[in-house]
Amino acid sequence: MPTLVLIRHGQSVWNLENRFTGWWDVDLTRQGEIEAKAAGELMAAKGLDFDFCFTSLQTRAIKTLNLALEAMGRLWLPVEKDWRLNERHYGGLTGLDKAATAARHGAEQVKIWRRSFDIPPPPQQPGGPYDVTGDRRYAGIAIPSAESLKDTIGRVLPYWEARIAPELKAGRRVVISAHGNSLRALVKHLSGIPDDEIPTIEIPTGEPIVYELAHDLTATDRYYLYER
Amino acid sequence: MPTLVLIRHGQSVWNLENRFTGWWDVDLTRQGEIEAKAAGELMAAKGLDFDFCFTSLQTRAIKTLNLALEAMGRLWLPVEKDWRLNERHYGGLTGLDKAATAARHGAEQVKIWRRSFDIPPPPQQPGGPYDVTGDRRYAGIAIPSAESLKDTIGRVLPYWEARIAPELKAGRRVVISAHGNSLRALVKHLSGIPDDEIPTIEIPTGEPIVYELAHDLTATDRYYLYER
Repeated sequence: MPTLVLIRHGQSVWNLENRFTGWWDVDLTRQGEIEAKAAGELMAAKGLDFDFCFTSLQTRAIKTLNLALEAMGRLWLPVEKDWRLNERHYGGLTGLDKAATAARHGAEQVKIWRRSFDIPPPPQQPGGPYDVTGDRRYAGIAIPSAESLKDTIGRVLPYWEARIAPELKAGRRVVISAHGNSLRALVKHLSGIPDDEIPTIEIPTGEPIVYELAHDLTATDRYYLYER
Repeated sequence: MPTLVLIRHGQSVWNLENRFTGWWDVDLTRQGEIEAKAAGELMAAKGLDFDFCFTSLQTRAIKTLNLALEAMGRLWLPVEKDWRLNERHYGGLTGLDKAATAARHGAEQVKIWRRSFDIPPPPQQPGGPYDVTGDRRYAGIAIPSAESLKDTIGRVLPYWEARIAPELKAGRRVVISAHGNSLRALVKHLSGIPDDEIPTIEIPTGEPIVYELAHDLTATDRYYLYER
């Protein structure tokens, strides 16, 4: 049976500082590194193993993957990195303190931006301090000015179909290290979660989520590894 | 002009212990990690940048690459890992202390095994403590029982031609993190070094070697980065 494991990156500097991050390339904290290593040790202890790895173009997800693979003795596995697994682009909220933003715009408005399905945050203004335009890792990509969760799903799922699903169907065991919202896209798809529920599903940092899949990739089971 | 940088992995545990390593998967020492990070910082400070990375299937080379890329803010670059960039297989010498081996077999014999062009060390006996047969990273590969430098060159150069040279010819800047002998294979090829000279060329750990190449990939310059 195909096995898929999803891992949200360990705690980042802006997770700790309670700031909207999106596409800004923030590093892991020391705690985040510890979480990533512990995730690898847990997977190895539970007998999980992989043949192929996917991650985003963002340092916090790549480092989480590298630290987990190192703990498993699996640094040699092939890794594909793609922007379509990046976090949701938080637009004009990128870099802002979440509490200060709530104080300024109201908690209700911030909740809409954070937890609605198809309402994007305000667009990012070009040339601001957290604008990734000109970052050459995104050369040739139409960088969004802001994304709703629906927008994020709209670029994650074509990548799933084109690159990840074929690996699983070929019998390869896959791990994906990514972000809260790019992983919500996959969880929604695999577990058939409705539009109005998926924004509220919390994906904790550094906790491997195991999917057992039938050959047609419908999910037969989903669980956090630490629960077993 | 195509740019190519070669880096031998930082100090490994068995470099420090003066043991023959070959295909055994030994980790970096703390000093080796520091060398790798410093290599990345030096490359960034000198304005070097890359589009594509190659490394072996061995932890010490992969970690060296990852630490250097992290120091450059380039963890997001694509990385291809291949056994053909592995260290020379040291056969029956794998795991042995170099000084003890010289005491037992004579310094002259050990020098022949280490520094001849086409004489392999004695073959590794199956089932010994450092036999990598059964390591699934090498599934489908005819693992050698021992390699001369000539044997190593015989599997490095086809990979160069098939995978690395096309990237350079397409204008992509390439870094290769590998091993003393897989890098000797490339230096011999690029710099036209004779068979009897190449075994004595020492490639220090963690020091980026820069090749400036013409469009047909003949070398126009080769230098250690710290020299400039």
